[in-house]
Amino acid sequence: MAYQQYIEALQKIADIKYASAVLQWDQETYMPPAGAHFRGKQIATLAELAHEKFTSAATEQIIVNALADETLTMAQRTNVALTFEDLQKSKKLSTAFVGKMSEAINQSFHAWIAARNENNFKVFEAPLQVIVALKQEEAALLGYADHPYDALMNDYDKGLTVKATDQIFADLTPQLTHIIDKVKQQPEADNSFLHQHFPKQKQWDFGLKLLTDMQYNFNAGRQDVSEHPFTTNFSSQDVRVTTRVDENDFSNMLWSCIHEGGHALYEQGLPDTEYGLPLGEYCSLSIHESQSRLWENCIGRSLPFWKNNFPALKKVFPKQCKGVKPKRFYAAINKVTPSLIRTEADELTYHFHVIIRYEIEKMLILGSLKVSDIPQVWNSLYKKYLGVNVPDHKQGCLQDVHWSHGSFGYFATYSIGSLYAAQFWEAIQLQYPTVSKQIAKGDYVQVLEWLNKNIYRFGRMFTSDELCKNATGSKLDSAAFINYANNKYFG
Amino acid sequence: MAYQQYIEALQKIADIKYASAVLQWDQETYMPPAGAHFRGKQIATLAELAHEKFTSAATEQIIVNALADETLTMAQRTNVALTFEDLQKSKKLSTAFVGKMSEAINQSFHAWIAARNENNFKVFEAPLQVIVALKQEEAALLGYADHPYDALMNDYDKGLTVKATDQIFADLTPQLTHIIDKVKQQPEADNSFLHQHFPKQKQWDFGLKLLTDMQYNFNAGRQDVSEHPFTTNFSSQDVRVTTRVDENDFSNMLWSCIHEGGHALYEQGLPDTEYGLPLGEYCSLSIHESQSRLWENCIGRSLPFWKNNFPALKKVFPKQCKGVKPKRFYAAINKVTPSLIRTEADELTYHFHVIIRYEIEKMLILGSLKVSDIPQVWNSLYKKYLGVNVPDHKQGCLQDVHWSHGSFGYFATYSIGSLYAAQFWEAIQLQYPTVSKQIAKGDYVQVLEWLNKNIYRFGRMFTSDELCKNATGSKLDSAAFINYANNKYFG
Repeated sequence: MAYQQYIEALQKIADIKYASAVLQWDQETYMPPAGAHFRGKQIATLAELAHEKFTSAATEQIIVNALADETLTMAQRTNVALTFEDLQKSKKLSTAFVGKMSEAINQSFHAWIAARNENNFKVFEAPLQVIVALKQEEAALLGYADHPYDALMNDYDKGLTVKATDQIFADLTPQLTHIIDKVKQQPEADNSFLHQHFPKQKQWDFGLKLLTDMQYNFNAGRQDVSEHPFTTNFSSQDVRVTTRVDENDFSNMLWSCIHEGGHALYEQGLPDTEYGLPLGEYCSLSIHESQSRLWENCIGRSLPFWKNNFPALKKVFPKQCKGVKPKRFYAAINKVTPSLIRTEADELTYHFHVIIRYEIEKMLILGSLKVSDIPQVWNSLYKKYLGVNVPDHKQGCLQDVHWSHGSFGYFATYSIGSLYAAQFWEAIQLQYPTVSKQIAKGDYVQVLEWLNKNIYRFGRMFTSDELCKNATGSKLDSAAFINYANNKYFG
Repeated sequence: MAYQQYIEALQKIADIKYASAVLQWDQETYMPPAGAHFRGKQIATLAELAHEKFTSAATEQIIVNALADETLTMAQRTNVALTFEDLQKSKKLSTAFVGKMSEAINQSFHAWIAARNENNFKVFEAPLQVIVALKQEEAALLGYADHPYDALMNDYDKGLTVKATDQIFADLTPQLTHIIDKVKQQPEADNSFLHQHFPKQKQWDFGLKLLTDMQYNFNAGRQDVSEHPFTTNFSSQDVRVTTRVDENDFSNMLWSCIHEGGHALYEQGLPDTEYGLPLGEYCSLSIHESQSRLWENCIGRSLPFWKNNFPALKKVFPKQCKGVKPKRFYAAINKVTPSLIRTEADELTYHFHVIIRYEIEKMLILGSLKVSDIPQVWNSLYKKYLGVNVPDHKQGCLQDVHWSHGSFGYFATYSIGSLYAAQFWEAIQLQYPTVSKQIAKGDYVQVLEWLNKNIYRFGRMFTSDELCKNATGSKLDSAAFINYANNKYFG
């Protein structure tokens, strides 16, 4: 009875959050430009409402009652305990603060779009200052032991800290630099054929085919176009991906499709019987990213995958693929080149794009870097880590949507997700020695079985750390990624 | 201060209602099938929340405070008074009742889709019984003087009653029957060329051109495809229309485009400074329908309109329009034929489609007709009023979405709206004697000026009756429609 009340209360709050997600999906896919102003207010109101309802005395009482119920199963107990933990955290932020943040995000999001269009950081500067100040306030309200940025990272991956992340990057970077240096000494891969003209509709159809092969369920999902590809969901029965199509660069649509497909399979794989409850939610953004990276890199950039898919690709684009063999295609899509745009980076230099953002965010939240100095620091870090000169803000510090969305503390999960992906991939290969052969036949049953058994079905039952340990036998270690990279480039 | 609080409270409630409208728009345009179950719950939760917030003691106090503020302007006073009236009405329904209704509607909507697909009324019968029972309960809760159906009609057009509507139809039908009989004696118009193959994309583009010409603002709107064409809005800055395209029947897209365009111009014309307040809302569904009918019939089915647009149409469909002259086209699109499908009916026989539904609804709500007897009564009324035999439920009592949406009391506004349209059209022609000449040049400035001055800008300031009297000098009278029909067919 207490648990039934708990379910009903939590599901109604989830309804509000998912409604907000629909409004955000629409905002990035179909909303006409003039709708932006009131849409921002509508999203802010829903955010306030969800927060107000969750932190109300009535909801707290329902949660406390459920917590005291001694007849609960283990899974039920986990749900209630996690919700109680969420509540303690949410109560640190007032509804007014949540509304203020949501409004500020709406303003900065539209300022960011304008700034990008005009290639003018100044347009974004003041709204971003507001966001940074609010994020500093949020960190103070949430509390932290060592670094204010810990409080924000915690929102994306429970327990993740600056200390741990610094250590991960300190382990990773020297080995990674070494690999990249060695790759540079090899003959350069030719990927020029990827930059021919690929008609939009044909790219789109090929993307749908890949998603279908991956077992993405179109009865419970769909793909649309947006400026920035993303995955969102309004239940595990309505999980949507977006992509973008560049007719002069096939890679854009290709990787975003497989990447978002990986995210979407995770959401579709979460138990819908746990709708609105912690066990129906993803573990962490690091684990979410492990799912997209595993499909995009470990599978999508593998030779077996293209042994199966290249003939189909050649059929769709015979002219563009003329004379190209699967092995050359494989070399091309794995070409390593330090570059300007994170989302188009190869999987080795990618980590440096993330580290740059991570360093900047830490300083912003600590207050040791002014927003106005971002462009200068951005450009010098790109020179330092990637050896490239940033020609303009659009290809520099205005390229990512995250800050305009208030998503501070998010970026590191991209790198950490890639490391988890490599570790999971190693475990999958260990358990299913024939997995690569299966993939070469277009059969992903073993992969999906492993992911479902070790990741999807647990929702938030475990932290990222625990999930990784249960699934692979050891905690996160960049060794798997380093092995994977060595195998790919020198194997 | 009191008024500012009132605005803030009302706008937050509007945010929730508009959020629900986004979810409903998505449900009918893009939502994947499996999303239906949780979407229904999400919409129900938003309906409950909006109702709960509006009828809360806190909101009531804010409204009462504003009502007591003697410094308000006339317009502000009107807003507050109308809101107070809305509140008294809303308080008659409990939040639980609103949630129950919303859930029942979701169930019956999906049952209706299934029933239509299977051409099986039985599939829809039980969910519709639930809706009818809830609507009877609603009528009792809201209260009425004469007929329970009055309470429901009132929701769509304040003050509309069975008595008044019966009288309108009693005036209209003998004259209308007489006109239809006379038309039958004329040589039959040939509209066979409308039923050739019209490629989808070309139809779509032509529809967009018409909407653009009408001054529908695509910066604050968009068109999508849905099973049933509709207009919805999430502010006056985001007003969306939908259409459907039948490649073998050009009329389908054509009339739905112009019809929904008329609705959309009304919504785009409402003052966005009054967002969420009565003066930012449409007057009534009858007046809303007058806007769609005025554009669809009085303008869109006029000879001047096609003098301007037919050459463009011929350019897009040269083969299909070969040998057709504007006059023949005009005759074809005004062909009168008693038929089965309301949305495809000509503007004369259309009223009988409405009357049939109106008669059935009155009986259902009164309890003198059982849901299970609908098909039989439907078919016999179609025989009686239109002289046609209904071959199956899909072309019979399962053709309209309204009952599955719980929209009882709505249908009469379609006919009444057409009568208002004719009366407004007469007034426009009186004030602007050159309007037809302007329309023949594709210039709708005079029409838009009149509509803005007499309809759009007032929001809910007046009732339908008052608005009509102010705009045309007299109350609703079917004479204008009869004159209009006589002019069209025998002028």
